[in-house]
Amino acid sequence: MVRFSLWCILAATCTAATSTPPLPQTIGILALPKFVGLDAYGPIELLNLAAFSSNLSLSIIGQTLDLVSSSVGNTSGLIPSYTFDQDPKIDVLIIPGGPASRLAINNPEVIAYVKRTYPKLQYIMSICTGAQVLARAGVLDGKRATTNKFSWKEMVASGPTVNWVAHARWVIDNNIWTSSGVTAGMDMIHHFITTALRNGTLADRAANILEYEVHRDPSFDPFADIWGATDAPAVM
Amino acid sequence: MVRFSLWCILAATCTAATSTPPLPQTIGILALPKFVGLDAYGPIELLNLAAFSSNLSLSIIGQTLDLVSSSVGNTSGLIPSYTFDQDPKIDVLIIPGGPASRLAINNPEVIAYVKRTYPKLQYIMSICTGAQVLARAGVLDGKRATTNKFSWKEMVASGPTVNWVAHARWVIDNNIWTSSGVTAGMDMIHHFITTALRNGTLADRAANILEYEVHRDPSFDPFADIWGATDAPAVM
Repeated sequence: MVRFSLWCILAATCTAATSTPPLPQTIGILALPKFVGLDAYGPIELLNLAAFSSNLSLSIIGQTLDLVSSSVGNTSGLIPSYTFDQDPKIDVLIIPGGPASRLAINNPEVIAYVKRTYPKLQYIMSICTGAQVLARAGVLDGKRATTNKFSWKEMVASGPTVNWVAHARWVIDNNIWTSSGVTAGMDMIHHFITTALRNGTLADRAANILEYEVHRDPSFDPFADIWGATDAPAVM
Repeated sequence: MVRFSLWCILAATCTAATSTPPLPQTIGILALPKFVGLDAYGPIELLNLAAFSSNLSLSIIGQTLDLVSSSVGNTSGLIPSYTFDQDPKIDVLIIPGGPASRLAINNPEVIAYVKRTYPKLQYIMSICTGAQVLARAGVLDGKRATTNKFSWKEMVASGPTVNWVAHARWVIDNNIWTSSGVTAGMDMIHHFITTALRNGTLADRAANILEYEVHRDPSFDPFADIWGATDAPAVM
């Protein structure tokens, strides 16, 4: 639903300002060493199934084109199709977490890539502790966000300028989407396909093929209480 | 709980026959080209978290040591630590599915590896259409099993000697565990850590870190009706 502001009703630019936003078509997954595989694969599988029936393309973006190993030993990895320097045009950037985010916040190349890419995106998203990377890049300054509840205290300490929301499966603040831990990323991406890609039928079909019972309520969160996470306002 | 049979009470071998089975310690994941990443990563993340607090080790087993690409283009893969020929000692073999299983049933080396390995295992497991590989290897002859509900008709046709159970998140027939589609593998592995590894606390802790809401009832299955799957008895 498009909401018309008073300014908009009076302004000549009304049509342009309120027109339906373009559908995002190109999605980049940030491949950071020691990413949690499930952070990446939950969203990737849903988006890949959605891509069969839409003009969606996925790419993996890394510091180099070398295989990026996951957090589970040397068992697996993501294979970048582009480097940061190649700077592929993307509409959405997704940042998985895990041990990866703890390393990435001390990697100036990763932080610089996120900083310079964010202004060009329609949406930026983090899964789990990927929010830590957004916070370090300044993207979350004064914004509402969530992250993994098991690592809550560490994430809050790492991002003091963020308004952290404890009881949330995912949080949307303007074009910044942050999910809670690991599998919460699947619910956020299901919501993304439903709303931003405007195709709830496709989102449900993808989830049903993966036999995933979707949490559709962004406030669903038994894990905040299990791990003792509480809201943490920004300290600016 | 150990049940004593009348034979056992009378027999000299009673103690050996009824003692608690040894805890499985070595788990192999079969890496098949075009596996669905989420089939593998759901179980891997749970088992990896369990491994932090137990004597569990994971290894990836492939036809060669080359990277095995997932079903999503050339974006990602599993890296085998052992080949079929190296024949590592494992207690459990897990077979993920996806386009991988359709290719594997026509790969004599894969089928031969599963055939000759099964008799040496404590448990064999399939995720999603990985059951198709078990069926082709004869492991499921006359056994109860389940598989992905979206691909149900294809799987039933591919495995006519199996007693396919439609409404099931997972099915256990002796030491053969088969899960329904993709994310159902996480519920089966949670049950495996709880029962076979005898550590429900560890299973719950792992699921809570991944913020995964576990389905604990093996008969949970809204997807059978969604995709029109019905029981299919074996045709021997």
